[in-house]
This record gives sequence, structure tokens and C-alpha cells, in this order.
Amino acid sequence: MISRFPVPELKDLPEDVRARIVAVQEKSGFVPNVFLALAHRPAEFRAFFAYHDALMEKEGGLTKAEREMIVVATSGANSCQYCVVVHGAILRIRARNPLLADQVAINHRKADITPRQRAMLDFAMKVALESHKVDEADLAALATDGFSKDEAWDIAAIAAFFAMSNRLANVSSMRPNDEFYLMGRLPK
Amino acid sequence: MISRFPVPELKDLPEDVRARIVAVQEKSGFVPNVFLALAHRPAEFRAFFAYHDALMEKEGGLTKAEREMIVVATSGANSCQYCVVVHGAILRIRARNPLLADQVAINHRKADITPRQRAMLDFAMKVALESHKVDEADLAALATDGFSKDEAWDIAAIAAFFAMSNRLANVSSMRPNDEFYLMGRLPK
Amino acid sequence: MISRFPVPELKDLPEDVRARIVAVQEKSGFVPNVFLALAHRPAEFRAFFAYHDALMEKEGGLTKAEREMIVVATSGANSCQYCVVVHGAILRIRARNPLLADQVAINHRKADITPRQRAMLDFAMKVALESHKVDEADLAALATDGFSKDEAWDIAAIAAFFAMSNRLANVSSMRPNDEFYLMGRLPK
Amino acid sequence: MISRFPVPELKDLPEDVRARIVAVQEKSGFVPNVFLALAHRPAEFRAFFAYHDALMEKEGGLTKAEREMIVVATSGANSCQYCVVVHGAILRIRARNPLLADQVAINHRKADITPRQRAMLDFAMKVALESHKVDEADLAALATDGFSKDEAWDIAAIAAFFAMSNRLANVSSMRPNDEFYLMGRLPK
Amino acid sequence: MISRFPVPELKDLPEDVRARIVAVQEKSGFVPNVFLALAHRPAEFRAFFAYHDALMEKEGGLTKAEREMIVVATSGANSCQYCVVVHGAILRIRARNPLLADQVAINHRKADITPRQRAMLDFAMKVALESHKVDEADLAALATDGFSKDEAWDIAAIAAFFAMSNRLANVSSMRPNDEFYLMGRLPK
Amino acid sequence: MISRFPVPELKDLPEDVRARIVAVQEKSGFVPNVFLALAHRPAEFRAFFAYHDALMEKEGGLTKAEREMIVVATSGANSCQYCVVVHGAILRIRARNPLLADQVAINHRKADITPRQRAMLDFAMKVALESHKVDEADLAALATDGFSKDEAWDIAAIAAFFAMSNRLANVSSMRPNDEFYLMGRLPK
Repeated sequence: MISRFPVPELKDLPEDVRARIVAVQEKSGFVPNVFLALAHRPAEFRAFFAYHDALMEKEGGLTKAEREMIVVATSGANSCQYCVVVHGAILRIRARNPLLADQVAINHRKADITPRQRAMLDFAMKVALESHKVDEADLAALATDGFSKDEAWDIAAIAAFFAMSNRLANVSSMRPNDEFYLMGRLPK
Repeated sequence: MISRFPVPELKDLPEDVRARIVAVQEKSGFVPNVFLALAHRPAEFRAFFAYHDALMEKEGGLTKAEREMIVVATSGANSCQYCVVVHGAILRIRARNPLLADQVAINHRKADITPRQRAMLDFAMKVALESHKVDEADLAALATDGFSKDEAWDIAAIAAFFAMSNRLANVSSMRPNDEFYLMGRLPK
Repeated sequence: MISRFPVPELKDLPEDVRARIVAVQEKSGFVPNVFLALAHRPAEFRAFFAYHDALMEKEGGLTKAEREMIVVATSGANSCQYCVVVHGAILRIRARNPLLADQVAINHRKADITPRQRAMLDFAMKVALESHKVDEADLAALATDGFSKDEAWDIAAIAAFFAMSNRLANVSSMRPNDEFYLMGRLPK
Repeated sequence: MISRFPVPELKDLPEDVRARIVAVQEKSGFVPNVFLALAHRPAEFRAFFAYHDALMEKEGGLTKAEREMIVVATSGANSCQYCVVVHGAILRIRARNPLLADQVAINHRKADITPRQRAMLDFAMKVALESHKVDEADLAALATDGFSKDEAWDIAAIAAFFAMSNRLANVSSMRPNDEFYLMGRLPK
Repeated sequence: MISRFPVPELKDLPEDVRARIVAVQEKSGFVPNVFLALAHRPAEFRAFFAYHDALMEKEGGLTKAEREMIVVATSGANSCQYCVVVHGAILRIRARNPLLADQVAINHRKADITPRQRAMLDFAMKVALESHKVDEADLAALATDGFSKDEAWDIAAIAAFFAMSNRLANVSSMRPNDEFYLMGRLPK
Repeated sequence: MISRFPVPELKDLPEDVRARIVAVQEKSGFVPNVFLALAHRPAEFRAFFAYHDALMEKEGGLTKAEREMIVVATSGANSCQYCVVVHGAILRIRARNPLLADQVAINHRKADITPRQRAMLDFAMKVALESHKVDEADLAALATDGFSKDEAWDIAAIAAFFAMSNRLANVSSMRPNDEFYLMGRLPK
């Protein structure tokens, strides 16, 4: 089962939604289940992926691997199976590191990352778990660690977006495709 | 201060973003700060409001007042000042009830709502606070209380969207406009 | 419903209890429900209001508005609808500020208060939520922020008294009178 | 050290406060430190002990040993050294049981008590730790277990009063007199 | 770095400790770091592995894969990187299932397991996270699900042993050998 | 009842297990229930006591009283009645102090201990309650307080061992022998 909610057939979807799904299938060889699980709500589907791409495919500032680290660490904290498995795979690929995702998902404090990345993930976890306590001091600390205001926003916005995403996946019991588990674990 | 992050001037914004802001100003008489606080990121701005409108302005199923109840209850649980004050105002207006928002924000268990609405908010709070524990039994209980699958998704999706929204507002220290505090409190 | 427990009629109350209730009614134009909800236990009623007045009507040291800030912040943390609504009204009046109570109730870190008041509320929240961790260092920090020992006691004692009060209101489902919601929100 | 706050000399106290202290000394052979630690605030001292006696010395309904069980269980949950040691001693004496207090302080679920007393303590712990979740169902369950409305109030009010008392003792680092540790442990 | 604490050289170890390490190396092709990280304390080393083997290599009752599920689920809850990675590998092998370990580590409620195994892990998580609340009712529920008393003990004892093990690994920052990450993920 | 699980008769036990139990009985005058409650699993019994003795009877470094302080503080945090009562007795004896155990069990921050012992217990509590957050900084702080690496390991290992022990006692509802409650409370 992909989701506890209805999964429409491709042929019943609006053209743009179907096109996006077909495109990802052609690129990846399969359709990640999140595309199917959100498709029953085309307007939400469009906004979700527009938002996702704005945060995760953005050029400059944080690297794409760093963005995925934020996703994996906060999704682990939220016990989101779909996001840990799927973004764990993407992190392995983007960081070209087969070990990093499992480390970050369980305890980012012990992952093979730089002190700067550790500070990034400490802040992301605070946003994920107790954002009401975020204070000027947290932003000042990020600046000291060399993060620009723009990068600080990215960290927060990614942690916030996956706070949403984790909840949707948890409630719908979204199932990670089997393909993701092994992805990025073998040397090329 | 509206936000800890940059607030661009209207004239520097992309046309569609500026148009949306101008439209809300004309309708409301002022610009709610969330529009200004998100404007420094036009792509995220567009996705945020598209997503928001898809969930909050949807016709059918949950009433608009019920949708706002979900926002106010979960934003209270996340200690999000901006969302409690602003959506509290909208809830007062949509429910035509000057007391309900303050009740729901502090403890929905004691608000003047129906048992069905109580069940709706109990589920929304579980999504907000421990979504990894949501189980088939929770969805079955919603069905028993007369919620369709579509309505169950709406409850979860609104709670999830404001999990994101609350974190953005908390991190940026987004300030509610003074206008919202009194809105909907006086008889017309 | 005012309370889950018995609410006696005025005529059945001991003379001093009735007198106190009549006095507050004459002064306020209505009887705040806490007086009715506690009246079934005259001895507790007397001790409760004697204690309350000793802490909240005390002259010198913390201002009366500051004392109400402590009540509102800690009652928010305890999800006490009665105390947030009622003392929110009193705070608006005593601080002559229509916005402050809603800010403090949801997240005192973002309220329009002085750094000294922020320190006061940080300490009050520690007393409310994890008093067993209060240490010499907390009291030393208060001294550094310019609070006398007497003021430190006041902060702690008010937070402690409302730890009791919040629990009584929560268990009895004490209902705030409708009058409080709007009180202090309009310019005089 | 008895308290982190000033402890006045007996001769400097108002007559009624001194009289109460002298009376307890004559009865017990020593002055429990709570009397000295609260004496710097005569109005609060009077209200505190009036309230305490109204709840703990009340005739009828819960036995006096049961009232002390509530104190010991909730004070353990609040990590209040003073109240666990002192009321542990009183519980041993009132229940004529040298083991009960240590059992209840650490985990009431495993104490040598009746099922009715277990239900009483379960409810008291809910009042102490998450009173905002107390619901009609909790009160209905107490009624089923044979508790009158009056007894239900007593349980809640004692748990609430010691929520205050524990916080005062924790903040002031009130020290239990050495005499209490052994009291009630030896057969007469 | 294998551990924050001293790692002795093989030649400096007592004969039986060295023999055990050499044996595991011959069997596995490498030495799992837990053997090296505990070797600086030979008496504890011997007790640890004797205890481990008594619980994990026991014949009858729970299958060996089920025992590993308990380890992986509770180690995930304790954020223990070493135990999740290492016992995740063993679980994949013993269950002949390359997906199960990642599922169980993040959220056992959504793993591909039987209802009986779900009940087993629910109980194990209660032992790991709030053992003081375990009650007769929990053991009765296990009996209803078909677990013998002996199996109930096994579940609890494994969860308890890894409560210890997780803490040792977390404090020493024990590093999983790189070999474990891929183990059991590829078809034979 | 000593335990929720089977308690074998002495005559049915393996010789070495029986010998250990007979020895403790001869030394203490009675058999602490933990020996009986674990005897149904001889292999686990042997490993448990070998581990226990390696940590608690070790010469050098922490004093034996300090080791017991760690047990009592962390067992209090885990609400383990058996371990608080039994090791409380041993702590009283080893520290020759009739008050210390009750103080440490409820709130070690207010016990009559040295600053160095306070630091020791702060670290032990972190290991007991959130070991995944233990960091280099914690170990550096211990070094500053004069603890060797070996002593740091001892603190962590004792807290970890009793994380296991507390869970076994909580699940089995292991009952402290009546003898322990008074032990060490009277002057010799």
C-alpha cells in the first residue's frame, strides 16, 4: 500500500500533474510514491513541489548535499520513514558518501560532517523540535559560524517544509519505494 | 520590526508578488505582515500562498471556520504568536463568534464547539505533536465521527501546513499587525 | 456551565464569603466565576483570596502589571483557559496595553516587554515548568538583572500560586465570564 | 541552610505567626523548616497554613493517610525533596506503615495500596502533571470507583496546593529537618 | 576514532578476551568495534558478551530476527548510531529482508511485520522509554497476543540490555565499522 | 509477591547460582529479592552479577559510596522502587550518612554532597536520560572537575548498567525486601 488515502490513476490526472510524474519516471526509472500519494489533490501537489524545488534545487549558498542533510536529520527526529529512506538515498548520492545518511538520521552529533555542518544541523533540529525558543542568539551564532542571513533562512525553511512533509507522510503512511533503500550505497 | 529577515520594498518585487500584496491591501485596508516577511523569496512566496489557499479557501467539506479552528489550536500548541493572533481574528470572523478563538488557542478541550469539532481538533493536535503515532485506528475513529476521507486529509494537511508556517513565523519572529488583535471582537 | 463542581447560591454562603462576592460584583458589575466556583468550600475560598491578594495587590517591588504578566505567561504554559482570559484582561488594563496579554500568553519571548521583564518571565516559566532545576545560578542571574531577593520571591510565589490556581481551574473546567474577553482592548 | 531566602528571628515576627510556630514546636519538639522559610511573608504564611489545614486536616471523606499519599506521590513527581521527606514522615505515621511513603514517592503504581487508592493517585498525578487534559471521563471514572464529588475535589485540590508548595520549596531550596527522615519508621 | 575511551592493543589483552576477539574476526572478516571499545575493561567485557549471548543467541521462543527487531527499534528510540547500524545489518541477515531494519529503526509502526511483532515492539518501546508505567495490563495483553511468560521476559530483557548498551555506545561515541552499512542489503 | 515472573525454589537452581544466593544470605541474614527474581534465568543471573560486581565492587577511583550515589540518583529518575530502596540502604551504609540516600533519590541538586559529586551526578543523569546528547564538552567538563578517563567511564557504565537494571525491576515489579527500608538509618 502506497498511502492510506486515494491514489488516482495517471490517466485521471490533470495534464501538468501527469506530465511531472511522467518526467520523474523517465529520469529515475520509477515514480517515487510521494508523487502518487499527493496526486489526489492537484492544487496541493503543485504547491508542494513548487515549494520543494524552490528550497531543494536552489543554486548557491548551502550545497545540495547540505540541504539533504537537514531533511534527513529532522525527518529522523520526526520518525518519518518515507523521508528518511528517500532523502537518505538522495543524500548519499549528492554527498557521494554511502555512510552519511544513516549517521545523520540516527544522531547527527556523531556524523562525519564539518563543525559548520554540525552547527547547521543543531539549528535545524531546534527549528524542527522547539521553534518557539529560537532567539536572536541562535541567529547570531549562525552568523559567527559563517552562515549568511540567506543561508540561515534556507536552513529554517527546509526544516519547516519537512515539518509539513513528515506529517503528511506519517498520516498517510506513505511507503518508500523499495528502490531507495539501496540507492547510493554501492561504489559506481 | 516585522521580521528578523529582510523585508523588501514593494517596488522591488516581481509583478505578481506585488499584485498579490496590493490586492490584499485593497481588500483588508492593510498588508498582513506574512506577505511582507515572505516576499524576499518570491518562489517560496508563490508556493506558500498557493498551498495556503488550496487548503483554507477550499469549498465543501469542513467549513471555513473549522479550518481556522485547526490553525488556531495547532498554532497555540506550537506557541506561534503570529498565527494565533492572525488566524484567531479570522476564526472570530468566520465563526461569527468573538470568544471562540481565545478558547481554542489555550485549550480546545474547553472550547464552545461540537463533539465532532472536538474530535477534529484532537486529531489535528496529534498530527501537530506526534504524527508518527497516527495509526489506522485514528482514521477509523474519524470515519465513525462522520468525517469523509477527504475531510480527514484536510484536517491533517492543514495541521501539517501550519507546522511549517508556525516554524517560519517563530524563526523570523514575524509580528502580527496590531489590527488583528481586536478584529471580530465587536458586534457589527 | 461555570464549573464541573457544585456552585452554591449566594444566600447559602457564609456571611464573609457572600460579602466578598457582593463587593466584587459592585466594583466590577459582575461576579468573576472563580468566586462562584470556589464558594462551595468557604475555608479554601478564604485562604485562596487572602493568598491571591497578598501576592497580586502587594505594593512596591514588581509593578501590578508585571505581576499579571507572570500570571498570563505561566497560565499559557499550563493551558489554563480561565486564567489566560481573565488575567489577560487585567494585564491589558494594568499595563494600559491592549496587545500585551495575547503576546505574553502565546510566547513571552516575543512580547513587547523590556529585557528585565523578559528575564522575569524566563524565571517564572522555569518555576512553572521545572522548578526542581532552579539553582543558585538562577537567583544570581536575577540579582544581576536588578531584582531584589524580595522581588525574586514574588516572581516565584506568583508562578507557584498560579500553578495551583491553573490546576483548580483546569480540573473544574472553570469558565471565564464573557465580559473578560473584550476588557481592556478598546481605547478609553 | 534552611532556605535561600531570609529567615527572620522569632522575636521579629507578628504575634499570630510566632504563636503558630511556638505551638508547633511544643507539639512536635522542633519547628519544621517550612514555618521558618515562609515567615518572612506573614500574609502569605497565614494564607498558606489556612489553606493547608483546610485541605489536610479536613474530617470525613478521604482519610488523613490518603491525603498524605497524594502529597507524597505528587511531590515525588515534582522532585520536591522537602515535601517528600516531611510528608513521607507524616504518611508513615498516619498510615501506621513504615514502608508506604518510600513506595509511593518513587512509583505509586507499585505501592501497597488498594485499587481505589491507586485510582485516587492516578488522578492526582494527572492533576499534577497534565491538568489541562483532565476531562469529564476522568471525573466519571472517579465516580465509578466510589469517590464522591467532594472527594474528587479534595484529590484535585491537594494535588494543586502541593503543586504550589513544591515550587516554593524547590525555589527556596527548603531543607527538611533531620528529624523527619527517621520518623514513623520504628515500631512503637 | 573508534571510541572516546582507550582502545588497547590486542597483545595487551587477557588471553580469553583476545581469543574472543580473534574468533569473531575469523568468523566475520573484521572486528566489530564494540569488542575493541569494551576491551579496556576485561571484567565488564566478559559480562557484557555473556549477557548479550544469553539473550540474543538463545534458542526457542522469539526468533533471532525478532530479537534483533527489538534491538533496532529501541536503539532507534535511543538515537544510538552504533546499535542501529550494526544490529540493523544483523536484522537484515537474520530476517533475510533488506528493507526491514531501516523501517523498524525509524518507525516500527510502519514496518513490514506481523501484528504479533507489532505488539512485541510496542511493549519493547514501553520498556525502553517508560518502564515505570509497565503494568499487569501490559503483560496480560502480551499473553493475549500469544506470548509466553518466557517470551515476555525476553522482550523486556533485550530492551533493558540495550538500554545499557545504547548508553555505553552513546557516551563512548562508538563508531560502527563501515562494513555494516551495506551488509545484508544485496541479494545473495 | 517478589516478581511478576517465576521465582524458582533454591533446590532447583544450578549449583553456582544457589551457592551465590546462600552466600549472600549468610552474609546479610536474608536474600535480597533481586537474586530470586533473576534466578529463573541462570545465564543472565551470572552475567548480571558479574557485571554488577565489576562496576560496584571495583577498588580505586570513585568511592563505593559515590558509586551508590549514581545508582540512587538515576534509579530515582527512572522511578525504580526496588533500586532506590535497596541501593538507598547501601548508600546510607557506605556513606555512613542516614540522610543522603533520600536526598539524592528525590533531587540530587539539593543533596549534602561536594561540588565534584554534584558534577558526577549531573553527568550520570545525562547518561540516564539523554545519552545521545553526551558530547566531547561533557567529558572535558569532567576532566576539569578532576575526574580521570577511567572514572568518567565508571560513572557512565554505572548509569548504563542501572538503566538496564531499573527496567528489569520495573517490568518484573521486583519488590524490595522490607529489611532495606530501615537499614543504615539508625546510629550504630
